[in-house]
Amino acid sequence: MKKIGKQTFKLSNPVSIKETASIVGPKESNGPLAKYFDKCIEDEFYGESSWEKAESKFIKSATEMLIAKSGISNKDIDFCFAGDLLNQCISSCFGLRETNVPFFGIFGACSTFVESLILGAMAIDGNFAKNVLCAVSSHFCSAEKQFRFPLELGNQRPPTSQWTVTGSGACILSKEGTGPYITHVTPGKIIDMGIKDVNNMGSAMAPAAIDTLITHFQDTSRDPDYYDGIFTGDLGYIGKDILLDIVKTKGYDITNNYNDCGILIFDKNKQDTHSGGSGCACCASVFSGYLYKKLKERKLNKILLIATGALTNSTTSQQGESIPGIAHAVSIEM
Amino acid sequence: MKKIGKQTFKLSNPVSIKETASIVGPKESNGPLAKYFDKCIEDEFYGESSWEKAESKFIKSATEMLIAKSGISNKDIDFCFAGDLLNQCISSCFGLRETNVPFFGIFGACSTFVESLILGAMAIDGNFAKNVLCAVSSHFCSAEKQFRFPLELGNQRPPTSQWTVTGSGACILSKEGTGPYITHVTPGKIIDMGIKDVNNMGSAMAPAAIDTLITHFQDTSRDPDYYDGIFTGDLGYIGKDILLDIVKTKGYDITNNYNDCGILIFDKNKQDTHSGGSGCACCASVFSGYLYKKLKERKLNKILLIATGALTNSTTSQQGESIPGIAHAVSIEM
Repeated sequence: MKKIGKQTFKLSNPVSIKETASIVGPKESNGPLAKYFDKCIEDEFYGESSWEKAESKFIKSATEMLIAKSGISNKDIDFCFAGDLLNQCISSCFGLRETNVPFFGIFGACSTFVESLILGAMAIDGNFAKNVLCAVSSHFCSAEKQFRFPLELGNQRPPTSQWTVTGSGACILSKEGTGPYITHVTPGKIIDMGIKDVNNMGSAMAPAAIDTLITHFQDTSRDPDYYDGIFTGDLGYIGKDILLDIVKTKGYDITNNYNDCGILIFDKNKQDTHSGGSGCACCASVFSGYLYKKLKERKLNKILLIATGALTNSTTSQQGESIPGIAHAVSIEM
Repeated sequence: MKKIGKQTFKLSNPVSIKETASIVGPKESNGPLAKYFDKCIEDEFYGESSWEKAESKFIKSATEMLIAKSGISNKDIDFCFAGDLLNQCISSCFGLRETNVPFFGIFGACSTFVESLILGAMAIDGNFAKNVLCAVSSHFCSAEKQFRFPLELGNQRPPTSQWTVTGSGACILSKEGTGPYITHVTPGKIIDMGIKDVNNMGSAMAPAAIDTLITHFQDTSRDPDYYDGIFTGDLGYIGKDILLDIVKTKGYDITNNYNDCGILIFDKNKQDTHSGGSGCACCASVFSGYLYKKLKERKLNKILLIATGALTNSTTSQQGESIPGIAHAVSIEM
């Protein structure tokens, strides 16, 4: 490993993303990326009696499918890095309690998936692990209950609001493999620009995404053109516009190769998801389902994946606090 | 780094714990370890308007004090690993948002402090970092509100219940330094033995502590006597007894050199804390305040620190779920 610039690290030996798995809920199953997901569940309860139990089942099923697809048995997985949006990360703790793999719980809000990729890549690059499991989940219904209003209220959602993706994305990182490879990682700092609107997460998270993106360009001396695609996790339409505008003032034009997973996963005109998708599973399912397959097919060869998170809860909002953001980035190349 | 046995790692170059800081609340300030803490706060609101804001201030103050004591500036700290018990880890996210250091949020319930030490040590051993900040917090009042009942209810606490430590413990790990050193790490698995009583966390966490402890002994081929002291994070009186009994049936007698941070921090007879202390700050403040100083003075030379966490929240309990436990261990030696 070599630190380059301020906060980017070039891995000594690129870490292979050996296998991925994705399972999504009903809304995502009717979206434009449906055919890329491994499994589409039409029942948002997933046969369970509560949204929390359903979310645990999403991450449990995704992980079990992943392990089966990969051909790597649980005992050959050195660590698991996992997290979710629920209080005390219960979805991942309960969903993964039977894996029998040393477990590191992590929390970066919707940035958790890339946080898991960074820590997993570090564990492998540092010779602590041969295989690492990374898994996250989110659920529209449990997230609304947790962060905003219970769905039973029938609350109206403002146009700036985003739709939490229901599902789970997971992957196995390995010392050996045929790629795609994680080559560079740029962990992010907490950035708080004072946004207080819990229905406008894109604006709250965009400053952190901008900070991590510019830092990554500066640290690596790469131009935006280096990448076939730059994908943020869940800035949505509003956050995307903010990012494009501000990044341009810093001298980087990414108009041609930038998109957001929250925009890709839903059809804005037909699906009534307002500013786009969000949640840990947004970036994770779009990567594990769609982007991973495009990389494998070499339709994409070099991407930068930047997951963004809003570090907030309902109590802090009620106590008048702003919403700090964070964004973590990984370069993934064939 | 070298993996030894099933899930223990021997660091290539022992990681030095360069400096620690601890700040505690009123109950802890009147306990037997008071003189070891850097700062004792007599006001549980710490001058703030809510318990959540108070808890953020504990971790913020501890971290600022730590950085000042260490002589290492923020810009020389490569990463921060931090977490707490509150929903969405808001105490650490808000308390550390001004540090300007790349931030990894982690969640291992009351095991979070040792989780941060393991990940920090891995980052340094893998050459990703020269200096890493590890910080956690907990607060009796915010934790009761979050996990059990609001204090205003004046609920009676059963004898098995533990008292969440109010405060924060933090440390800086460094590539270079004069010790004490982290030499081995044993990350733990999630273990669920079906305990459902939210007022009996010691019983819920003891099986995980036993699993990690026995695994550590087997992996390292060390006897209990190798250590001057073995300290669990917050099993309390009930969890300690369970651990001693079961570990003895496995052929290890640790009666003479084992204690629990939750037992050390309060005076059972005078302080009405029932089964002892708990919370992320229990293990963190006892280590950062008391054990670190004993190591520096060479009153202790080799210790095994095993922080224990109960991976639960109030929703899972209300939905009839059991309480999975986890325990992470680090060997710390002069």
